[in-house]
Amino acid sequence: MFDPATYRTRRAHLAATLEQGLVVMPGHALSPMNYAGNAYPFWQDGSFLYYWGLNRPDLAGVLDLDQGTATLFGDELTTDDLVWTGPQPALAEEAAQAGLVSVRPSADLASVVRAALQQGRPLHLTPPYRPATRLRLATLLDLTPAEVDAHVSRPLIEAVVAQRSRKTSAEVEQIEDALSVTAAMHVAGMQLCRPGLRETDVAGRLEGEVLRHGRRLAFPLIFTTHGEVLHNHPTDRALEAGRLALCDGGATSPKHYASDITRTYPVDGRFTAPQRDLYQIVLNAQEACIRGIAPGVRFLDLHRLAARHLVEGLQQLGLMQGDADEAVAAGAHALFFPHGLGHMMGLDVHDMEGLGEDHVGYGAEMRRSDQFGLSALRLARTLEPGFVVTVEPGLYLIPGLIAQWRQAGRGAPFIRYEALEAYLDAGGIRIEDDVLVTDDGHRVLGPPIPKQPEDVEYLMQEAT
Amino acid sequence: MFDPATYRTRRAHLAATLEQGLVVMPGHALSPMNYAGNAYPFWQDGSFLYYWGLNRPDLAGVLDLDQGTATLFGDELTTDDLVWTGPQPALAEEAAQAGLVSVRPSADLASVVRAALQQGRPLHLTPPYRPATRLRLATLLDLTPAEVDAHVSRPLIEAVVAQRSRKTSAEVEQIEDALSVTAAMHVAGMQLCRPGLRETDVAGRLEGEVLRHGRRLAFPLIFTTHGEVLHNHPTDRALEAGRLALCDGGATSPKHYASDITRTYPVDGRFTAPQRDLYQIVLNAQEACIRGIAPGVRFLDLHRLAARHLVEGLQQLGLMQGDADEAVAAGAHALFFPHGLGHMMGLDVHDMEGLGEDHVGYGAEMRRSDQFGLSALRLARTLEPGFVVTVEPGLYLIPGLIAQWRQAGRGAPFIRYEALEAYLDAGGIRIEDDVLVTDDGHRVLGPPIPKQPEDVEYLMQEAT
Repeated sequence: MFDPATYRTRRAHLAATLEQGLVVMPGHALSPMNYAGNAYPFWQDGSFLYYWGLNRPDLAGVLDLDQGTATLFGDELTTDDLVWTGPQPALAEEAAQAGLVSVRPSADLASVVRAALQQGRPLHLTPPYRPATRLRLATLLDLTPAEVDAHVSRPLIEAVVAQRSRKTSAEVEQIEDALSVTAAMHVAGMQLCRPGLRETDVAGRLEGEVLRHGRRLAFPLIFTTHGEVLHNHPTDRALEAGRLALCDGGATSPKHYASDITRTYPVDGRFTAPQRDLYQIVLNAQEACIRGIAPGVRFLDLHRLAARHLVEGLQQLGLMQGDADEAVAAGAHALFFPHGLGHMMGLDVHDMEGLGEDHVGYGAEMRRSDQFGLSALRLARTLEPGFVVTVEPGLYLIPGLIAQWRQAGRGAPFIRYEALEAYLDAGGIRIEDDVLVTDDGHRVLGPPIPKQPEDVEYLMQEAT
Repeated sequence: MFDPATYRTRRAHLAATLEQGLVVMPGHALSPMNYAGNAYPFWQDGSFLYYWGLNRPDLAGVLDLDQGTATLFGDELTTDDLVWTGPQPALAEEAAQAGLVSVRPSADLASVVRAALQQGRPLHLTPPYRPATRLRLATLLDLTPAEVDAHVSRPLIEAVVAQRSRKTSAEVEQIEDALSVTAAMHVAGMQLCRPGLRETDVAGRLEGEVLRHGRRLAFPLIFTTHGEVLHNHPTDRALEAGRLALCDGGATSPKHYASDITRTYPVDGRFTAPQRDLYQIVLNAQEACIRGIAPGVRFLDLHRLAARHLVEGLQQLGLMQGDADEAVAAGAHALFFPHGLGHMMGLDVHDMEGLGEDHVGYGAEMRRSDQFGLSALRLARTLEPGFVVTVEPGLYLIPGLIAQWRQAGRGAPFIRYEALEAYLDAGGIRIEDDVLVTDDGHRVLGPPIPKQPEDVEYLMQEAT
């Protein structure tokens, strides 16, 4: 945890932004896998961690905006817990670390929120993205599960997003701490990868590497030789010479901040000429977008810049044609780049996505496009100092999608389908780094991880 | 998956056991970690896997007992899914592998179950232990979440428990397949463990070892030098020479069966004399209980046998006194052995616990005790051929609990508290194997994993 003042200040700032009523922030419960007693590893809600700090199940925090108080609701452990989980600090002791003096039993929470409802005071909730949270709130408020949504508060969401979007230097330190483990993991991936192993051989070792540091993966690891399937999790498929391996993974920090890095490399340590051509297109796009990051720049424009780089690169390979700007405007590049350039990152890898992606990435200033590809852009808004964003253009040869488009005559003026046939088995490439928007530009976070093709090849050759 | 006939036969058997109405079995949805799009690795419900076979989110199976039909409800993937998850077999194709010919869209499920309700036909549900399942059923049935429980069906639970309790040879093969990976993991643990590392160093490598085989942990790994805290997950605590490391972990099989093994070993590869004394008590108890396993034997009696071995062993060390049977009857051993001897194991590591532990472990024949220690016994009933059970006695020195008991004068005639003082820092020991009840006795499953103290020491010395 950060020092108590950090949490007090965060709560005071939030309270000052909102007008009246109660802010009720339930923390997470344990999530059952195949029965209540066999739970997934505990994962606390990001906003709860941000304002209330404690990484323990079954808590709730309440800000009374009218009284100016902050109260934590939760229960002490019992003798049975002593046997199963060992001696634990008293809740009040833990709460003090988050700058809290008022702690009450969970059972008191219902009367507090119902009294507020009866007095007609507004309740402010964030969207309950976990079914358990929705059920808890429904019981608490004596409402049906669907009725809970009536108390989801746009002012609260906007205030939280504004606050969590601007990372302090202490938060950036956490992200860089996470990145130090992530860098080691990606380097290990390049060193381990070789023909004859299976995807799970490498992926298992990489996840083990993260766990060995006492960290967790910020999201399930992608390690695949079919990177054209965007969220492809490791299988027992053999790593074949001649294919590209795509590894998208990030560790958490001790204070639960995320990291998110992608590297793509040849299974056998040497890019073929066509692989290198495609790789260089993505790398050029990524480097151009990183260079463009600064306060006042719209991330949407960087996404378009990436798209334009991809189109021009593909034109040079004879895979696209026509006016590059028109191709981007028509969304033709999305056949090869069907996702967005990046997203905010912080306590959540897609930071604050549970509050609603549009609130985080578009805000009041912009509206999401419904064009294929652009509709998947998670972040479009104008960058501000303190934002941490991922920059992750990709280039994918998705046979099923190419066949669909070709048959429908889609993108026809811009895409040279005959030429594409030679590339149908190329797979997918993505290169991703995490970037802080500074007052006068940007800083790429964490230790460097090889991404120049010659550096990747050198590292991989050295390992064998 | 097993062959289609397996699932058809299982469903037919279940249908034949029940009388009338609809059996509605919802499969699991993805479980969000910190937002809907960042889910924990998918884990299917055990009974769904058993009867419907498919390991994919958002399905439901319905047995119409009156019509004699079995229908799978679920949706095909969309174009967006094609980009994110790649080409997948059509649902009907997957369903055919589970012997199913009738597949309908998810949206049809509500009308089917509501029509049955309106006709006054009984609905049979298993307990919705996941909040997401409860919410789905509430919406489906147009009930409040709490009202769903009215349709939890004791006949269904009892029929499922009866069927899943007796493992076929194909199921036992799966458990042994899981155990082959688990054995490798435990051997690696003994080889890796040494002073100076942290708990997470070893635990991370062991989990990575399981993942490398394309398997998952059947439950979160316990690897700790404070085994006296029963569910102690790995921390960054240093492994200190002179302490015992307790490792309780099991991998899954390709068809999602569990395994569950515990070994305890000295961090530095050599038992001290007192450690060896305590260890030998647990090992004697475990071996005696395994020898006792046979059809017709009550597991409760084996639990008592373990307790009696522990008491006698502790008496020899001068830590207990008085009549051993009286000590066991009074529950005095539970100070050192506060949990049960074992549990059923199958698709779930505590098999079918989501259906209600008492239904699985006690059935109609017995009632759970409320005595401390015995109340934690998950399995007490008479063993039958085909049961797979864990046998896992333990001996723990829990300073907080010892202090509580001593102060309360609890167990006073049997426990020599002064003598205990020299052992307060001994930690915890547990030894666990998985055992099949055969027609004429038992078979310990999986490859042998060192547990004789000299074998453990030999393996650990060899590794250094």
